[in-house]
Amino acid sequence: MQLTPKVKEILSWYESDNPGTKANLARILMEGKLGGTGKMVILPVDQGFEHGPARSFAPNPAGYDPRYMFELAIEAGLNAYAAPLGMIEAGAATYAGAIPTILKLNSSNSLSTTKDQAVTGSVADALRLGCSAIGFTIYPSSEYQFEMMEELRELAEEAKAAGLAVVVWSYPRGPMLDKAGETALDICAYAAHMAALIGAHIIKVKPPTATISLEAAKSTYEKYPVDVNDPVARFKHVVQACFGGRRLVVFSGGEAKGNDAILNEVKAIHAAGGNGSIMGRNAFQRSRQDALALLESIISVYRS
Amino acid sequence: MQLTPKVKEILSWYESDNPGTKANLARILMEGKLGGTGKMVILPVDQGFEHGPARSFAPNPAGYDPRYMFELAIEAGLNAYAAPLGMIEAGAATYAGAIPTILKLNSSNSLSTTKDQAVTGSVADALRLGCSAIGFTIYPSSEYQFEMMEELRELAEEAKAAGLAVVVWSYPRGPMLDKAGETALDICAYAAHMAALIGAHIIKVKPPTATISLEAAKSTYEKYPVDVNDPVARFKHVVQACFGGRRLVVFSGGEAKGNDAILNEVKAIHAAGGNGSIMGRNAFQRSRQDALALLESIISVYRS
Amino acid sequence: MQLTPKVKEILSWYESDNPGTKANLARILMEGKLGGTGKMVILPVDQGFEHGPARSFAPNPAGYDPRYMFELAIEAGLNAYAAPLGMIEAGAATYAGAIPTILKLNSSNSLSTTKDQAVTGSVADALRLGCSAIGFTIYPSSEYQFEMMEELRELAEEAKAAGLAVVVWSYPRGPMLDKAGETALDICAYAAHMAALIGAHIIKVKPPTATISLEAAKSTYEKYPVDVNDPVARFKHVVQACFGGRRLVVFSGGEAKGNDAILNEVKAIHAAGGNGSIMGRNAFQRSRQDALALLESIISVYRS
Amino acid sequence: MQLTPKVKEILSWYESDNPGTKANLARILMEGKLGGTGKMVILPVDQGFEHGPARSFAPNPAGYDPRYMFELAIEAGLNAYAAPLGMIEAGAATYAGAIPTILKLNSSNSLSTTKDQAVTGSVADALRLGCSAIGFTIYPSSEYQFEMMEELRELAEEAKAAGLAVVVWSYPRGPMLDKAGETALDICAYAAHMAALIGAHIIKVKPPTATISLEAAKSTYEKYPVDVNDPVARFKHVVQACFGGRRLVVFSGGEAKGNDAILNEVKAIHAAGGNGSIMGRNAFQRSRQDALALLESIISVYRS
Amino acid sequence: MQLTPKVKEILSWYESDNPGTKANLARILMEGKLGGTGKMVILPVDQGFEHGPARSFAPNPAGYDPRYMFELAIEAGLNAYAAPLGMIEAGAATYAGAIPTILKLNSSNSLSTTKDQAVTGSVADALRLGCSAIGFTIYPSSEYQFEMMEELRELAEEAKAAGLAVVVWSYPRGPMLDKAGETALDICAYAAHMAALIGAHIIKVKPPTATISLEAAKSTYEKYPVDVNDPVARFKHVVQACFGGRRLVVFSGGEAKGNDAILNEVKAIHAAGGNGSIMGRNAFQRSRQDALALLESIISVYRS
Repeated sequence: MQLTPKVKEILSWYESDNPGTKANLARILMEGKLGGTGKMVILPVDQGFEHGPARSFAPNPAGYDPRYMFELAIEAGLNAYAAPLGMIEAGAATYAGAIPTILKLNSSNSLSTTKDQAVTGSVADALRLGCSAIGFTIYPSSEYQFEMMEELRELAEEAKAAGLAVVVWSYPRGPMLDKAGETALDICAYAAHMAALIGAHIIKVKPPTATISLEAAKSTYEKYPVDVNDPVARFKHVVQACFGGRRLVVFSGGEAKGNDAILNEVKAIHAAGGNGSIMGRNAFQRSRQDALALLESIISVYRS
Repeated sequence: MQLTPKVKEILSWYESDNPGTKANLARILMEGKLGGTGKMVILPVDQGFEHGPARSFAPNPAGYDPRYMFELAIEAGLNAYAAPLGMIEAGAATYAGAIPTILKLNSSNSLSTTKDQAVTGSVADALRLGCSAIGFTIYPSSEYQFEMMEELRELAEEAKAAGLAVVVWSYPRGPMLDKAGETALDICAYAAHMAALIGAHIIKVKPPTATISLEAAKSTYEKYPVDVNDPVARFKHVVQACFGGRRLVVFSGGEAKGNDAILNEVKAIHAAGGNGSIMGRNAFQRSRQDALALLESIISVYRS
Repeated sequence: MQLTPKVKEILSWYESDNPGTKANLARILMEGKLGGTGKMVILPVDQGFEHGPARSFAPNPAGYDPRYMFELAIEAGLNAYAAPLGMIEAGAATYAGAIPTILKLNSSNSLSTTKDQAVTGSVADALRLGCSAIGFTIYPSSEYQFEMMEELRELAEEAKAAGLAVVVWSYPRGPMLDKAGETALDICAYAAHMAALIGAHIIKVKPPTATISLEAAKSTYEKYPVDVNDPVARFKHVVQACFGGRRLVVFSGGEAKGNDAILNEVKAIHAAGGNGSIMGRNAFQRSRQDALALLESIISVYRS
Repeated sequence: MQLTPKVKEILSWYESDNPGTKANLARILMEGKLGGTGKMVILPVDQGFEHGPARSFAPNPAGYDPRYMFELAIEAGLNAYAAPLGMIEAGAATYAGAIPTILKLNSSNSLSTTKDQAVTGSVADALRLGCSAIGFTIYPSSEYQFEMMEELRELAEEAKAAGLAVVVWSYPRGPMLDKAGETALDICAYAAHMAALIGAHIIKVKPPTATISLEAAKSTYEKYPVDVNDPVARFKHVVQACFGGRRLVVFSGGEAKGNDAILNEVKAIHAAGGNGSIMGRNAFQRSRQDALALLESIISVYRS
Repeated sequence: MQLTPKVKEILSWYESDNPGTKANLARILMEGKLGGTGKMVILPVDQGFEHGPARSFAPNPAGYDPRYMFELAIEAGLNAYAAPLGMIEAGAATYAGAIPTILKLNSSNSLSTTKDQAVTGSVADALRLGCSAIGFTIYPSSEYQFEMMEELRELAEEAKAAGLAVVVWSYPRGPMLDKAGETALDICAYAAHMAALIGAHIIKVKPPTATISLEAAKSTYEKYPVDVNDPVARFKHVVQACFGGRRLVVFSGGEAKGNDAILNEVKAIHAAGGNGSIMGRNAFQRSRQDALALLESIISVYRS
């Protein structure tokens, strides 16, 4: 496979990684309909853990079967598929080599009252299942944030040594943040920056909203303003926080919503130089046909 | 031993496991009177730990002797026998090869006020005692749930690498759940799904009851209703939550009760496509003769 | 040394243990004046840790010197001597081979307000000091009970692999138990049963008293009554809880008391099929001559 | 490279270190415009973690790109550049050998309410990235201080064995200290002394202020007074607390401030026999040209 | 070097230790002006950690330089010098072989509000620095006492296996003890006894005072009285608690005080059969000349 100049450039940003990790990043970046563009659409299916099976799969019961997810991601021409251990184990052999997989190594659930997650997979699992990357969630600002970061550090070091890539879900929540604060522009940029500092190859954050939350940061944003009402400006600020655009950053789709809302967000990400979308419920909770159509539209934006 | 097509099909669901683990799953599935049918009846004896010796064995004092349990399971033609370390050590040599055993690796007791368990056995113990599987309980929703899941993760990884199967008791309890909530249909399905996601080969849950507990899930169940008053529909929903029926799920019998109540439940499990029963107090607290008769009736249902 | 049929029978109960552990159990069972009878009297000296040196040794100051304890146990013809690290280190070479020793691996003290113990020795220590067994205390019902059981599990696994025997002091205490509850018959039987389930070879409990403590157990004891006012019936119930008598169980002597009280208790243990006594303060706080006379009387009961 | 007598003398203070660690200390001491003088100016960039990206880099957006920091440190002729994992990974290959790097192994952030840090890097990371030293922050007086010191101890032992140097940021904070107390002269000297006792090669503290904070220390300072109003006397006292000047100690610049204030502080450090400055925000938040000018002025003071 | 009969006798008490540990005990016992007598004077310098640099060294600023301490101990003809990592590293090569050193492996500080210490050194450190022993503090009665004892256990096992001796500072403090209780005779004897039970070779306690603190111990001391008002009787009781005098026990000097008070205490220790003194602030806070004179007087007492 001949890498495109764009992918070669991206790999050059990860100059300290070993060839194994670079190869796995390349596999993700060269896969599917966006292969070679430097843009990505990833299918994540950790909602069964996070929200339970019915809330995740009742709208489209085909999704109860883990094979459906592999097939959806492959048929839609996505870059990668991310899920917890059981989901990957249930299809890793059948779909071996058919799509890069990201083993999500920690998981929360709706029956918990603490802002933490359980580690539910290992680097050894990722290797035996042929994954290209590990995935890990941190909750900056949670009272468990340091423990989560330390778990990530250990797993990331082990993953990098084994030639895997590291994808970090950086989702701020905790006592200092109200609901609005969790996606505030400054907080989102901060969360992305911390993921970069911990050594993530691909950073996943939520789309930033038009507010500044941290008291101590307000004077900075007054002196060096960002046009918080312009989605493109907001996404640009997050991209900037990812080492001036030298770390891959993708944005989650969030709750199920209408196609127009989704596509407008995707256009803004694209215009801002973001690297793509990670689209779960908006994909697998639609019928297969609708999901494929939506994903095709998203991919078209990123290809434009 | 020639595996039946049904067992071969079930093994195919576990496509990521090594031949050792597949062989141990096959040993359990091919054992006893239900051997080859894809259905199972398992004898679990962890009640001595959970409730104390007198509450467990006074109704049938023969059960104080651990050999009784091996013999009961063998004579009844069950698929496997599950117990904590001391119980297995006390008969593992005498009954070596006579019935697959499941070493229960954690244990609670009635003198505890916390919703946690102590790890009381290891994968090395399971191997030296010739067991086919490890067993482990998690309490989703407990304030210790993440620690329990992490203990399970480590032990399951080690067990799988050593060619053992993993049986998970997934029993929700904790601050968000009242007594009714612990067996609510949505909670039971959620608990089964999490066990599947963590990588269990065989999932053990309690029979789901006709209620929906989690506030956040109610609108889903209104929009995509399950006939909660029909036991078969409830069991079907749990089976569906186990990767659309591609993970083995068995249901516990719970407190000692009458034969009719037990058999009606078993019929519903069977009709719903569940994979069997795990029957403790309802077996060993009856006299040997009564227990054998009841177990034979249960097996007959599953063979029908 | 030719093992007696009784000792061979006892060893047969421990069918999952390796020859090293069986040999060490045999060493204890074949030692001293009760050698070969299946009965044991053991000298434990952890009171210096538990109560301090003066409360332990002032009544008989010869006991300040650790050599005294070895000599007392040897001269009295006991089966074994149990003590913490420092006590064993102080005589292990001088008395090497003269009496089986049990290294007590955890220790509490009277300056603590928590119902926990510190781990103060290791299996490696037991091996380098030529011990036959490790000893470990658990406090079922304590808020630290699960941690203590997990420490025991790890040490017991290591000890068994190294061919050592495992002696467990199972002493219930904690928020659910008042002082009377700690030695209640049901609690004592439960404590003994849990030690058996965790894999103890020799179980040490306190003599059970004529009360039932656990609310949830009362209906069981009403339906299947034990004559709680008969000491022999009480000891029998505890023996039954030890796998129907297939695990060795010995009873502690407790606080210093008169010879008659002690001997009556010993007679009841013997009549109930218990395996012996572990006698600390009642031995070493008497003068050497008185202690030897009392121990001889106890041994006579068990030989009768 | 011929070491200067001054650097040779300094290396002689570290008489217990292996040649690898001595070589790395020499690399830092011989680098840049102050090379060989025994004085150092170090660029630290952990503010992105501590304060977030915008508060750190908005004043000079070139700093969002990690390459800027390497180039600034190299062009300014500094002794070393210190940063967390992601920042070093982003340039370690491009600038390999161009400037000694210090991998900061723990990191705090403004979204935390606890006085602790997360470990976010390892000695293995430092080695694979070609660093000369590890950096670690302790918060003496914090309720997490013992854990932080123990983390440091482990990492420092590993670093020294691998031939790396150890740089300790010793920043007192915690329940016993108000804001003024954190930089009080006695506290600052104490913090520096503890870093020396734990085995730091280079100690980084904040400039001490003209107050004595610890009640128990006041009578000592009354009996053996230090002229707390004289900055040179204060810095001298801290140098003295670093084994009578036989451990390298550098002082942080703190918040961005005017050139005169900075240079006055640097002159006092120099006059007191301090070993230099570690200058972050005052360097990279200025324009490149202004930063280079300021750093040149600072270096001139130390060269005088 | 020909060992004296006295030292040979002392080594015989440590019959379970390997030749390496015995050799290191011999090195300490044969060193200096008391070499061969079975008595010891040790210089400990952990006050910089405990109280800060100024409170420790301002009275005699020569002590800021770690070399001063080595030289003081050598010139005074002491048996050993004990200090934390940084202090030993700063002179271990220069004074290699000139005096036995004890690496203090844990350290507290005056900025802490918890009765715990941080582990700040390792057995590997002690070995690479040529030390003869490790030192470790426990706080019996502290809420951290079990953790501290478990840390000590691990380090002591490792030290003994490596042929090092183990020196334990046993300093009771915690919720059950008021200030007077910390040095009460019963508490001091108990603390010494626990250190012996954990396996210490040399026990360091504070001089016991004329009070009995533990409620539960009072009846014992009434029945078996100790003349608490006679210092010699008090020291004798502590010596007795150290395995009837078969473990080395030394007493700390405590706060700086007058020569007469010190010498009276030393005479009582000597008369009681104690093994010596560990003298910190009373040594290094005096001028070199005064310190040498005082130490010479102390040594004279022990030689008499």
